[in-house]
Amino acid sequence: MPSYSAPLRDYRFIFRDLLHIERYANMPGFQDASLDLIDQVLEEGAKFCEGVLAPLNAVGDEEGCVRHADGSVTTPTGFKDAYKQYVEAGWPGIGSTPEFGGQGLPRVVNLAFSEMVASANMAFGMYPGLSHGAYEAILHHGSQEQKETYLPKIVSGEWTGTMNLTEPHCGTDLGLLRTKAVPQGDGSYKISGQKIFISAGEHDLADNIIHLVLARIEGAPQGTKGISLFIVPKFLVKDDGSLGARNGVACGKIEEKMGIHGNSTCVLNYDEATGFLIGQENKGLVAMFTMMNMARLGVGLQGLSQSAVAYQNGLAYAKDRIQGRSLTGPKNSEGPADPIIVHPDVRRMLMDAKSFNEGARAFAFWTALYGDLLENSPDEKVREKAGDYMALMTPVIKGYMTDKGYETATNCQQIYGGHGYIEEWGMSQFVRDARITMIYEGANGVQALDLVGRKLAANGGRAVFTFFNEIDAFIGENEGDEKLKVFVDGLKKSKGDLQEATQWLMANAMTNFDNAGAASHDYMHLFGITALSYMWALMAKASLEAKANGGAADPFYDGKLATGRYFVERMAPDSAAHLAKVKAGSASMMALAADAF
Amino acid sequence: MPSYSAPLRDYRFIFRDLLHIERYANMPGFQDASLDLIDQVLEEGAKFCEGVLAPLNAVGDEEGCVRHADGSVTTPTGFKDAYKQYVEAGWPGIGSTPEFGGQGLPRVVNLAFSEMVASANMAFGMYPGLSHGAYEAILHHGSQEQKETYLPKIVSGEWTGTMNLTEPHCGTDLGLLRTKAVPQGDGSYKISGQKIFISAGEHDLADNIIHLVLARIEGAPQGTKGISLFIVPKFLVKDDGSLGARNGVACGKIEEKMGIHGNSTCVLNYDEATGFLIGQENKGLVAMFTMMNMARLGVGLQGLSQSAVAYQNGLAYAKDRIQGRSLTGPKNSEGPADPIIVHPDVRRMLMDAKSFNEGARAFAFWTALYGDLLENSPDEKVREKAGDYMALMTPVIKGYMTDKGYETATNCQQIYGGHGYIEEWGMSQFVRDARITMIYEGANGVQALDLVGRKLAANGGRAVFTFFNEIDAFIGENEGDEKLKVFVDGLKKSKGDLQEATQWLMANAMTNFDNAGAASHDYMHLFGITALSYMWALMAKASLEAKANGGAADPFYDGKLATGRYFVERMAPDSAAHLAKVKAGSASMMALAADAF
Repeated sequence: MPSYSAPLRDYRFIFRDLLHIERYANMPGFQDASLDLIDQVLEEGAKFCEGVLAPLNAVGDEEGCVRHADGSVTTPTGFKDAYKQYVEAGWPGIGSTPEFGGQGLPRVVNLAFSEMVASANMAFGMYPGLSHGAYEAILHHGSQEQKETYLPKIVSGEWTGTMNLTEPHCGTDLGLLRTKAVPQGDGSYKISGQKIFISAGEHDLADNIIHLVLARIEGAPQGTKGISLFIVPKFLVKDDGSLGARNGVACGKIEEKMGIHGNSTCVLNYDEATGFLIGQENKGLVAMFTMMNMARLGVGLQGLSQSAVAYQNGLAYAKDRIQGRSLTGPKNSEGPADPIIVHPDVRRMLMDAKSFNEGARAFAFWTALYGDLLENSPDEKVREKAGDYMALMTPVIKGYMTDKGYETATNCQQIYGGHGYIEEWGMSQFVRDARITMIYEGANGVQALDLVGRKLAANGGRAVFTFFNEIDAFIGENEGDEKLKVFVDGLKKSKGDLQEATQWLMANAMTNFDNAGAASHDYMHLFGITALSYMWALMAKASLEAKANGGAADPFYDGKLATGRYFVERMAPDSAAHLAKVKAGSASMMALAADAF
Repeated sequence: MPSYSAPLRDYRFIFRDLLHIERYANMPGFQDASLDLIDQVLEEGAKFCEGVLAPLNAVGDEEGCVRHADGSVTTPTGFKDAYKQYVEAGWPGIGSTPEFGGQGLPRVVNLAFSEMVASANMAFGMYPGLSHGAYEAILHHGSQEQKETYLPKIVSGEWTGTMNLTEPHCGTDLGLLRTKAVPQGDGSYKISGQKIFISAGEHDLADNIIHLVLARIEGAPQGTKGISLFIVPKFLVKDDGSLGARNGVACGKIEEKMGIHGNSTCVLNYDEATGFLIGQENKGLVAMFTMMNMARLGVGLQGLSQSAVAYQNGLAYAKDRIQGRSLTGPKNSEGPADPIIVHPDVRRMLMDAKSFNEGARAFAFWTALYGDLLENSPDEKVREKAGDYMALMTPVIKGYMTDKGYETATNCQQIYGGHGYIEEWGMSQFVRDARITMIYEGANGVQALDLVGRKLAANGGRAVFTFFNEIDAFIGENEGDEKLKVFVDGLKKSKGDLQEATQWLMANAMTNFDNAGAASHDYMHLFGITALSYMWALMAKASLEAKANGGAADPFYDGKLATGRYFVERMAPDSAAHLAKVKAGSASMMALAADAF
């Protein structure tokens, strides 16, 4: 049975030594977020995730959710009670605004908590995760009345939320969607149509479910310009806030999936369900993207979360399992064989995972902090940069971190040999659960295209040039430092490759858009490698500073330096291959006619 | 529901244009293998695989095998009948010697048939696949009496076989095994112990199961020097060949696995079971390796097989599913959207798979032909080279082809978007089934170590130098040919990287064995890329020749050239990254003490 132990020491390092979060103490939204409080919140959260959620992870995988003849859905044994505890402890609202009952902690703290939840039990974490997406959409686009009606209950966790985009014939291309909304003259609409792949779409955890549904108002334009967003509660809410009639939305089926069995992935049938417009008519995609950007960060973190928990268990097995002898002579000569952690190739899989996990965690948190600054900074310049970075980094975090998270989780499963393939050992579940993160919230190919087709070019490339300048400044400041040399040189190399790829795109993508599409996947990975090279350089510098300031005896900092060096030497060299593929252009990719395949 | 269509056109190209198999018409073992006969056999085989085995693939996944209270095992619905048809058509023996009832076709033809079986239904294919391994071991190491007793029934398929190596506490490190054999004075032994992960260990398909079991004879030396190989039939065989008493071996459990549910993966308990020594006492590993080398080729091909069937279905979906518009303007302006094959990133996943599949298939078949030459060539020089190549290429085929096969199968699942994650669509099964190929028959890390630690150094590096010389000769002969330029240049680059990595290993691995271990995974992949670059150069040349000789109107050859060019431009650039990682050495990989992770 796998277990989970939250990376509290790494969180402390990120908040304290890397992000210096105490700098923001005077900023709205940060006043209550002292380092001590963050430590305390995350310690409590860790206890809950380790003790309550992690033991239910395998249960959820094995049992799955059950749909009954009346369309109701039962979650796996223990989920309902765990959710009750989750609500009673106030976890749903730690990152939500106090105006509606939340604790108002910074997003970046909420993100750390989300990582722990996802590592412990990803399928469970999706129930509150989706609720938080609904919260964001209503908070930013709903009317005051809608906010007052729905947000307090969502923030408390009494109600949960969902996102309804996909239909059987359309996912990525939402312009094709057919679910229709007919105005009733009283401000409400009748919603009819079928939505599929609705995570947490029906369950027994909460009293009500607030569905956010994309639909086309009768007579609206075709394509994406005619899509509106609606609130469709499972139970209509009376004026006094109590629950009224059951609405015309029902779960028609639960999908049998490769993983995340503990989450109910529903076909939802809307049959003249009563819905309420959020925001403006035909502007539904704008509102939905508010949810999706946050959701994409969250999904990137899910990719990391499965890699992180798979790594922990791979590590425990590598220390425990004895098999063969070290190539350089026995390391456990008393025993019949050495623990397999002595074998370089086992190390390779562990170090790949460790150096990715820690780099990716830093990258996600560093980016999420810009989310807080975007929301809270009084300085317009800071907000502009924060908005640029959030937009630019989001597809990289979603696409790169889930691709790599799946790969490293697979490698950690590999450490178990044959036992890794047996469900009982739990490693298969991490891989199967991780697999969805590459697909949902915009498949990774869509992320890559969003990056090269939209985010790079926005404002004349302002965001990416700001990022390059920031890295150049760091290199300039630290180039002479012998202790940082390996990190600075590594960063220079990755960033040079990324810059060359960027220039190639600027020169070649406008004349042939297929060159952008053909380059997108490799560009996204090259960007991810560069971002992590930068994070490792920052973390190395922070570790050296911490050592110089009284931390010399703490082996944690030496571990950071060794892990970062591994990233530079063993992970970052992929950047050159990605650059070569970007520069290969689209010709050979598009050469074959469809019927010549 | 996914489907399968055998790559008969590609087989024809490989046998005719690439391998020129008619050259060997005068060699023993090849006399009956005319191109026409090969076509005919594979066409028949294709019909069987497409029509009988493929439709049972999802059934096997869903139902799995069931163990009953008495230890008997029922295979999924339809498997028993399909196996009966398989036996009646004579498929078990197509590659076996006529001396014991086989058809005596070359191994390379048998391999093509195996690929089709594995693509259609990998879990089913393992039943006869394991039997063939048992056949090889008994044929090469058994006594004449043992051959006469067991081989005719295994060749006919009336009985099946298994390989029993792994025990709960040992897999890779067989020196630790504890199953014991006590001599009975009459030439037989009593075998006691527990074996795990025994594929096809118990089932209802055949009348008898011939277990090949590694065990330690009482008093034998510790470690690998005290291991012997035994035949332990499920039912003892009487002198007249009929079945006698049930032997003391029983299935204690069937494992719940990530995939290959249709194959029974058994815990087998041996309780004073009667066994018969094969070959010499304490030389069991040598005999077992005869089975394992063939099995490793077969597993490499399984990796390819899942990639191949996943590719076919990914392609069909990419042509069928409409979503979004081409970046260069609508390609299906009549419809509401374009088929997703217009999108470069979808193409990338398809072309990655296609160029890997066709290159890997050529590589596996090219190598398997050396297996036939090793067995049959009258020329000692040819046999030496064939033996060298078989030994050198086997770990590459097993490790590289399964790593990449899993990756490309995952990408083909990705093409389906959310539907790829739903079991009903069948893509998840290909990925889950493919996953085991990286683990069993020696985990890929073990293959990599076998390559750098054993195969490279054998006979002073004779095998790898022969391979380099062969490639150099090809480059020398074709360097001036403009039409081959991209292939020759690509090959030169990959081979240059591989040679540099080889030299680095020679200079650095003997002084620090951890450098060999640390380099092994990347070296294996670099080797695989070089081998496929060579195959693509050979196939490009063969395609140009075929075009010049009347094949100009056949779009197949242009497809080959375009696919090969894609491999060179988009897959081969990884070689430089692998070289950089090889040359990084083991320092950063081994830097952390086990308790500092």
